Amino acid sequence: MKARITVTLKNGVLDPQGKAIEHALSGLGFDGVGQVRQGKVFDIELNGTDKAKAEADLKAMCDKLLANTVIENYSVSIT
Amino acid sequence: MKARITVTLKNGVLDPQGKAIEHALSGLGFDGVGQVRQGKVFDIELNGTDKAKAEADLKAMCDKLLANTVIENYSVSIT
Repeated sequence: MKARITVTLKNGVLDPQGKAIEHALSGLGFDGVGQVRQGKVFDIELNGTDKAKAEADLKAMCDKLLANTVIENYSVSIT
Repeated sequence: MKARITVTLKNGVLDPQGKAIEHALSGLGFDGVGQVRQGKVFDIELNGTDKAKAEADLKAMCDKLLANTVIENYSVSIT
């Protein structure tokens, strides 16, 4: 089973890296670019076929290791 | 218009960060975790309503700035 976890900053949390990308894009001549926010993505291979257990495990992984839930949101999708 | 760009390492490119996460997850007691690969995600707000132009712009942004196409793949989705 393959899963993708996407971790993004919560709204209102400052994102200096995103701001830097914004400036770089407008410096390269891309007009009409508004806010840019950067996040992380984790592609995880899981053994087993129990989708419900996998989803529970993935959420636990996010809470314990992959995301800082004070400032970040995460979403889990299993394919 | 909002777009999400996902940048992932190509197959065969070493991902030490992913490996570290793998080990950390098994150290935390998560069994059955196979390969972990880390990537980046960019959430970009775009002005304008021309979807075709936006997609072309986003691909140009990836080629010029956001992705290293020697070792990374990217995908663009507009919502």
